[in-house]
Amino acid sequence: MPLTAPLHGVVPPVCTPLDSRGEVDTASLARLVEHLIEGGVHGLFALGSTSEVAFLTDEQRGTALRTVVDATAGRVPVLAGVIDTTTARVIEHARTAAGLGADALVATAPFYTRTHPKEIAGHFRRLRETVDLPLFAYDIPVAVHTKLSAALVRELAEDGTLAGLKDSSGDEGGLRRLIVELGGRDGRAQGPVPRFSVLTGSELTVDAALLAGADGVVPGIGNVDPAGYVRLYDAARAGDWQTAAREQERLIELFAMVDVGPEADMGRSSSALGAFKAALQLLGIIDDAATVFPQIQLSAESVALVSQRLRGAGLQPVR
Amino acid sequence: MPLTAPLHGVVPPVCTPLDSRGEVDTASLARLVEHLIEGGVHGLFALGSTSEVAFLTDEQRGTALRTVVDATAGRVPVLAGVIDTTTARVIEHARTAAGLGADALVATAPFYTRTHPKEIAGHFRRLRETVDLPLFAYDIPVAVHTKLSAALVRELAEDGTLAGLKDSSGDEGGLRRLIVELGGRDGRAQGPVPRFSVLTGSELTVDAALLAGADGVVPGIGNVDPAGYVRLYDAARAGDWQTAAREQERLIELFAMVDVGPEADMGRSSSALGAFKAALQLLGIIDDAATVFPQIQLSAESVALVSQRLRGAGLQPVR
Amino acid sequence: MPLTAPLHGVVPPVCTPLDSRGEVDTASLARLVEHLIEGGVHGLFALGSTSEVAFLTDEQRGTALRTVVDATAGRVPVLAGVIDTTTARVIEHARTAAGLGADALVATAPFYTRTHPKEIAGHFRRLRETVDLPLFAYDIPVAVHTKLSAALVRELAEDGTLAGLKDSSGDEGGLRRLIVELGGRDGRAQGPVPRFSVLTGSELTVDAALLAGADGVVPGIGNVDPAGYVRLYDAARAGDWQTAAREQERLIELFAMVDVGPEADMGRSSSALGAFKAALQLLGIIDDAATVFPQIQLSAESVALVSQRLRGAGLQPVR
Amino acid sequence: MPLTAPLHGVVPPVCTPLDSRGEVDTASLARLVEHLIEGGVHGLFALGSTSEVAFLTDEQRGTALRTVVDATAGRVPVLAGVIDTTTARVIEHARTAAGLGADALVATAPFYTRTHPKEIAGHFRRLRETVDLPLFAYDIPVAVHTKLSAALVRELAEDGTLAGLKDSSGDEGGLRRLIVELGGRDGRAQGPVPRFSVLTGSELTVDAALLAGADGVVPGIGNVDPAGYVRLYDAARAGDWQTAAREQERLIELFAMVDVGPEADMGRSSSALGAFKAALQLLGIIDDAATVFPQIQLSAESVALVSQRLRGAGLQPVR
Repeated sequence: MPLTAPLHGVVPPVCTPLDSRGEVDTASLARLVEHLIEGGVHGLFALGSTSEVAFLTDEQRGTALRTVVDATAGRVPVLAGVIDTTTARVIEHARTAAGLGADALVATAPFYTRTHPKEIAGHFRRLRETVDLPLFAYDIPVAVHTKLSAALVRELAEDGTLAGLKDSSGDEGGLRRLIVELGGRDGRAQGPVPRFSVLTGSELTVDAALLAGADGVVPGIGNVDPAGYVRLYDAARAGDWQTAAREQERLIELFAMVDVGPEADMGRSSSALGAFKAALQLLGIIDDAATVFPQIQLSAESVALVSQRLRGAGLQPVR
Repeated sequence: MPLTAPLHGVVPPVCTPLDSRGEVDTASLARLVEHLIEGGVHGLFALGSTSEVAFLTDEQRGTALRTVVDATAGRVPVLAGVIDTTTARVIEHARTAAGLGADALVATAPFYTRTHPKEIAGHFRRLRETVDLPLFAYDIPVAVHTKLSAALVRELAEDGTLAGLKDSSGDEGGLRRLIVELGGRDGRAQGPVPRFSVLTGSELTVDAALLAGADGVVPGIGNVDPAGYVRLYDAARAGDWQTAAREQERLIELFAMVDVGPEADMGRSSSALGAFKAALQLLGIIDDAATVFPQIQLSAESVALVSQRLRGAGLQPVR
Repeated sequence: MPLTAPLHGVVPPVCTPLDSRGEVDTASLARLVEHLIEGGVHGLFALGSTSEVAFLTDEQRGTALRTVVDATAGRVPVLAGVIDTTTARVIEHARTAAGLGADALVATAPFYTRTHPKEIAGHFRRLRETVDLPLFAYDIPVAVHTKLSAALVRELAEDGTLAGLKDSSGDEGGLRRLIVELGGRDGRAQGPVPRFSVLTGSELTVDAALLAGADGVVPGIGNVDPAGYVRLYDAARAGDWQTAAREQERLIELFAMVDVGPEADMGRSSSALGAFKAALQLLGIIDDAATVFPQIQLSAESVALVSQRLRGAGLQPVR
Repeated sequence: MPLTAPLHGVVPPVCTPLDSRGEVDTASLARLVEHLIEGGVHGLFALGSTSEVAFLTDEQRGTALRTVVDATAGRVPVLAGVIDTTTARVIEHARTAAGLGADALVATAPFYTRTHPKEIAGHFRRLRETVDLPLFAYDIPVAVHTKLSAALVRELAEDGTLAGLKDSSGDEGGLRRLIVELGGRDGRAQGPVPRFSVLTGSELTVDAALLAGADGVVPGIGNVDPAGYVRLYDAARAGDWQTAAREQERLIELFAMVDVGPEADMGRSSSALGAFKAALQLLGIIDDAATVFPQIQLSAESVALVSQRLRGAGLQPVR
């Protein structure tokens, strides 16, 4: 589904289930897409950080994206992450994504190398010129160790390079300032870039982001409970902030599943992605909860804690 | 005014005006206190970062605090920052503050030295045991380069060490998780520490923090427009989130005054504090806008930009 | 040339010259290899950070490595960087490198994602088990934002996973402690891993590293003046530390060429790599000094400063 | 002993022993001074980070400095740390130190607040103008979270503000570049600031720093084994780099005592300072090994490990 209007709503970064050989489990992935669309989401983000994109080979990335596009069948737009160190490599992923039918691209600033803001601007512009798809900037300093400044985002929005921003920087004050500069929550349509879409990746403060005027959210734990985020979004759109805040609080309690991995033994990232996948397996949506090597797998005890969190949030495990 | 109930509302960190010799201008400071109380604020925080506490000698700190306490005359509670590197030094400031009539203390984790969470817990406990005043933890990693974990704050709240938290960490998601753990926005009174007060120092997302269940805000730019923050707070308390968000947006535009200093020539901190003081001078509240040496002073051009920001936000300079 | 003994000496990370279309200029690259081998270097490191590996497509990486291997013709060992985000992607590069005739592999910890030390250990072990070539750990926190601990390096050295370490962490004290743990400068051969090779990437303190017991150096500016580093190495081996230190000082003055790019307009990385390539062009070794997009190119003024630095260090530009 | 020539040699940062009430144990401190001077050191640095200066009240600082000055009795110069957040507070310490007979001052950049390089320059200049004692800049980013640039140090050296630099930044390459800019190891006397003294705080790479042309070292573990650092220094001065390196290796093995504290229970800083004091107690030099609250104390097991390290380095515990 092409992006004819600015992207809005709930756009989960789709997890990538694996089979027992460690390859993409396309049947489970198609079921997950169905689960998300049935939950009412407004778009899907394939090959993002939550999709373990950094762990997948190019072939596996292709398989995952093709599966998401096919299973979606045009019902919602599919955004494709094109995550790699620098421009030439990102363009290769972008061409592949375009060929596979992605509706938009999501790219970060260069990483591994230290890059100047002028170079980052060149990077996004070259990418937009080379592959003709709407382009979202993915601001994720925890991964790329560069923060996109509001000035840079505005410049690239105003010259038409960017169709939107996916902000995973955690800098809520900075995002708020950007939205005010773009016209504010009620004035965006009359602002300098009326069609620019602001999505937050801060899944614990979505009510706040929507109150501030963000267009939507890209929630990792939206894989597990897409309907919850859709309810939150709908309440916020209706101006029922109390309901939105209560739904957010329920989702925060659900989110606590990311703490299940003992810090001494595994990284925060492995434990969060492992918990999401364990929840999806417990809910009967995917077959196997494994994360990609070298991530350490959750213990049975940790999975039991995930199960508890599901029940606590009103979601019933089937396994 | 002793803290009989949990602290809530708007509690600005009071700027410290200087005279031409660089000493505390007590007349200007008393006028500033009056300006704030007339604006409807619920408390005052003297000797915070915005008060340039790190730049003041012990004698100057004493003068500033005494002036704030005297000018306040019990109309609202006065919190006193006790900012120093480690416990013994902080306790000396705390004793002075108690002697000068402060109603509560605000202390950071140790700085300059690297400190273990167990040592930080010991630091707050010793301080609370030694000086009998309600104690707020001041979480400000940009200054002390340590983040207080939610677990540590909870532990110190539950054992009665802390009366509250002033969160200037910018980690809105983390703060939200803490509030949910404390019972959530509607359940705090039935939670584990019903009298614990959560204040945010993130002055650009106050509507969001209040929606999340925070009790109040400590806004630097509240020096300039206390009535604006009080309107925001009142709207939020009344459940009128649209009005709260609009007021927040107006305050964000006002806040843009902190960008007036050219980055090549002065620090972000000097330019923000210089802008607040310039605004207070332009509004006729304080006599001199100087910040403490070695901070670089705003140019006339920068002051003109501050004046523009005031007018843009509906505040009329009198000079 | 297979690595039969522990790697030692001067092992420059080979720059990757480009032609006017931005593709690898194999003729220039072959001339650069000749320049380095004539300079007396003991090995070559292709596809490292200085080779702009993060900017090259897989095809370009293949071309560059093939060219270096062919031009070297077995005269010295060729190490190949296998730089990518995580294990599966790194293994693909490693298989390619093995197929192209590399004598050893150089891999970093995973990046983009946050990874636990146990996961990093798994990463190196899996890589070593899968592709049968000596493996060097590349400790470069400025790029991957993880520091390999001495304990982890020792563990992977002692179990035979690692043949050596390329330390670009800048933590000279930590490296010294590691060497002492391995037996010290005179006792390495009797230590726990007698064949483990310690190479420093800190090109400004090579005399110091050799005095400490390091086996060799991977100097970026060794592209420009390989013979200088070989003289430094030979003097150190002969115990003539005064001569070694003087040569190091000359190379430091030469290295100042990396400062030519104005900070306002380009990144430190672009300016350093641009300066190395400009110097190689001025010396007549490569045809074109361009760095890979989106890096910003040196101005004519900056190139003139590079030329000055060359003359100052006794190297005569031919253009 | 006034600083008539540029400071050189071994200048340990003197530990501050405590009595059972947590006050400065002046008798133990005087014995420690004697131990250091008998060890042949060339100067003493009181009230540095290793002296736990950040933990001492102003009164305790005064007691410690007075004791060091008195015990030294002019046999070597005494440098005094004047560690506080900003200029006015540092000047107060500087006046006290001058009154107590310090021969030179050691000051950091401002901390707690974020400060611009121009403000840092103003800070050092004002301090030098106000208190007439030779001034050393203390570059310690791990504590103050600002790195002094080589350009700033040069500027302040050339205009006479600074008598020297104590570099605890760990940036050995940067320090080497600075020394080359000052004329290099053999050319300093003919360079732009012939009387400027460069001291390294990197106690594990002292042979390297001296080879590079540094004038001396400020080693924390020099409290425990001053004679070892003096031997290292003398060997280096005599050009006997092999002996210098061997002595350095012995001191590195001794230094491993800083690892005795279990990371789960105490900070790195507490464990290092605790180990130094435990060693001094075991050697019979000070009465009590306690570090200042809230630092956590070493366990008996950890003290036993310190004892082992002493024996391993050829130092005989007497308790």
